[in-house]
Amino acid sequence: MQKKNISLDEAKKIIDANIAPIQRTEILKIKDLIKFNVFADRVLATEVISGINVPPFDKSAMDGYAVKFEDTQNASSENPVKLKLSGGVFAGQTGKNKNLKEIKSSECIYVTTGSVLPVNANAVVMIENTKREGNNVKIFKSPKLSENVGKEGEDIKKGNVLLRKLEILTPAKIGVLAAIGVKETEVYSIPKVAIIGTGNEIIDVGKKLTPGKIYDINSYALAAVIKKAGCIPVRPKIAKDEEKILQKRLEEALQYDVVVISGGSSVGEKDLLSKVVESSGKILFHGVNIKPGKPTLFGNVNGKPVFGMPGNPASCLMNAYVFLLPALRKMARISFERKIVKAKISEKLRSNSDRHLFVTVKLENRCVKAVYKTSGAITSMSGADGFIEIPITKQVIEKDEEVEVNLF
Amino acid sequence: MQKKNISLDEAKKIIDANIAPIQRTEILKIKDLIKFNVFADRVLATEVISGINVPPFDKSAMDGYAVKFEDTQNASSENPVKLKLSGGVFAGQTGKNKNLKEIKSSECIYVTTGSVLPVNANAVVMIENTKREGNNVKIFKSPKLSENVGKEGEDIKKGNVLLRKLEILTPAKIGVLAAIGVKETEVYSIPKVAIIGTGNEIIDVGKKLTPGKIYDINSYALAAVIKKAGCIPVRPKIAKDEEKILQKRLEEALQYDVVVISGGSSVGEKDLLSKVVESSGKILFHGVNIKPGKPTLFGNVNGKPVFGMPGNPASCLMNAYVFLLPALRKMARISFERKIVKAKISEKLRSNSDRHLFVTVKLENRCVKAVYKTSGAITSMSGADGFIEIPITKQVIEKDEEVEVNLF
Repeated sequence: MQKKNISLDEAKKIIDANIAPIQRTEILKIKDLIKFNVFADRVLATEVISGINVPPFDKSAMDGYAVKFEDTQNASSENPVKLKLSGGVFAGQTGKNKNLKEIKSSECIYVTTGSVLPVNANAVVMIENTKREGNNVKIFKSPKLSENVGKEGEDIKKGNVLLRKLEILTPAKIGVLAAIGVKETEVYSIPKVAIIGTGNEIIDVGKKLTPGKIYDINSYALAAVIKKAGCIPVRPKIAKDEEKILQKRLEEALQYDVVVISGGSSVGEKDLLSKVVESSGKILFHGVNIKPGKPTLFGNVNGKPVFGMPGNPASCLMNAYVFLLPALRKMARISFERKIVKAKISEKLRSNSDRHLFVTVKLENRCVKAVYKTSGAITSMSGADGFIEIPITKQVIEKDEEVEVNLF
Repeated sequence: MQKKNISLDEAKKIIDANIAPIQRTEILKIKDLIKFNVFADRVLATEVISGINVPPFDKSAMDGYAVKFEDTQNASSENPVKLKLSGGVFAGQTGKNKNLKEIKSSECIYVTTGSVLPVNANAVVMIENTKREGNNVKIFKSPKLSENVGKEGEDIKKGNVLLRKLEILTPAKIGVLAAIGVKETEVYSIPKVAIIGTGNEIIDVGKKLTPGKIYDINSYALAAVIKKAGCIPVRPKIAKDEEKILQKRLEEALQYDVVVISGGSSVGEKDLLSKVVESSGKILFHGVNIKPGKPTLFGNVNGKPVFGMPGNPASCLMNAYVFLLPALRKMARISFERKIVKAKISEKLRSNSDRHLFVTVKLENRCVKAVYKTSGAITSMSGADGFIEIPITKQVIEKDEEVEVNLF
């Protein structure tokens, strides 16, 4: 049954119980992963097993001379060991290089960082610890066994599980995918969120303002929050306050993963949203005991979550931070943590309300002051760095009291 | 003169002195600002002044009845005031609605949230405090002057400076741009960063691995860090270890704002990068007393910063976090703050080095352990949550000592 004027906690619980992490996956090319216009925090939908060893061969980790370490025992600046220079291998040179065939006793081979190590060589002496004299090289410091050698598979072993399902592809993990040369991988799709602005008074930016009309603020602010959540906002459409039109817009929007509607969830004659949601699905709650944002609606139509946000811009955007952002992050499988700082309040603040209050604040030198104007004012939000909460049980915050600020 | 093996602090200072915030700007449509593939944190390059009042007219903030508040004095549930219902105005209806002309004494007009307020009305009684009886409405609670009325310009006044240069367009600020109906605004362009991977041994992902070759890791990891910095990575190109080729790649790359080259900055015969940078510009330092990442080069060619990163994947990526990320954020005009958490170290850690150490660590239940393998291993980075620093003056971190972890 539809719940009315529930508490903030109950509203959060109902939303959480009705938002599932996205199941849809897609194949993404590694080359696309690093494109600027491809969302960065992609979530792996598969485990990644290496098909190769990395490095794929024993390699030199330094510029210097590959040696048999046994030949260089006790070398020092005073008593250098002299080896015959029998050739050189540069990084990228393949097995065709004759010097790669085998290193003989008392010989050394010049190598650069990344070179394949000649057969039977088991250490590399850094060039700084050597001196070349014609066809000979003086070794001033004896290396340990395998010193300056990158052993085959030292970084990654063939068959190892390197990355697991649900890991976020950070720069290092993208590096791992590149290291094993995979072309593409399976990631979770990014949820798509349809936005519907309602109201006969709403017109889109860029159009001429005619009497009685106001510009659509909510669709833009909501789209920006949806992006912040790591989801794709689907180009907003405005619906007139008519049941048929709103119904049609909702039906169109149901092809996406979530529907967010702003306005139309108040209690007047023109309150169509609850009618429309109820006729095609289920309202899970309508009305939360918070300020701003009381006339919030949440429902489910054809298995898709439908958020009905207040029409007032400050209420709508505040609600987007409180309810929508964490819900969409959960759906997108990206962790969500509020950024909280503690600060002293510079003026006494009274609640004067029997609802849970959200008050936008500005932060200056570890002090905050309230900047909230009205729920209709977008400047209640745009001038703020974050918000504080005043629960129902608290009536007053005294001057200089410490508060927790949720940063936007 | 070119500086060699300088300290970490000196390297940071030289980079900072040679990175300037981007000056280039562009016009961006508000509709594009909210597209998913348009970078979110755009920086305003102009101040924004409102051309209109918001709201553009006195409006009702509630569904209810517009009244002259003088008519309703002392109304209560016991002694309601009865007014004549003389019409209705819905949100979005314009001056053509006859009910908007004027409200007369002892009359009321039905209004919805967002309606234009009828002429001479000065308060709105919420519908919850009324009862309609035929053509009359009983008022049970007398409103204050202007109660439930959104005054013209209450949110935004025409001519006011709303947003300033250098502000980041957060959801609320995008809402402000929408509120005043602007179509487009001037923002700073996003710096473009060219990536050049060097090395004859490097091949691109997706290709078949042939003997002596390894996959290009650095270009991918660097591109991901560049994205994290809010900059555009330009499709990496691989340069063979030949002076002419590297020179050509560098020249092509100079059309962008920054050039990042990985590899080729070591000291072997094939160390071409310093030669190439020196011949066309200036090396500002080559070699930093850090581990990993010693063979780092920084220079300036044709006024463009050139970063020469180590070829070893862990060194390269660590350096990208230490030097490149803050530098690019500065250029992109987006603030940069390292995310630091404190944790206890679960095992004694020795420095064994006369260089400033970066050690990658994994965080588990407020404890960290070192996961650093070698500078050649990308898994030194991919398995880590962040890194700790051990300055030159410190030799040992004891078990259970508290350390500061820089989260990736």
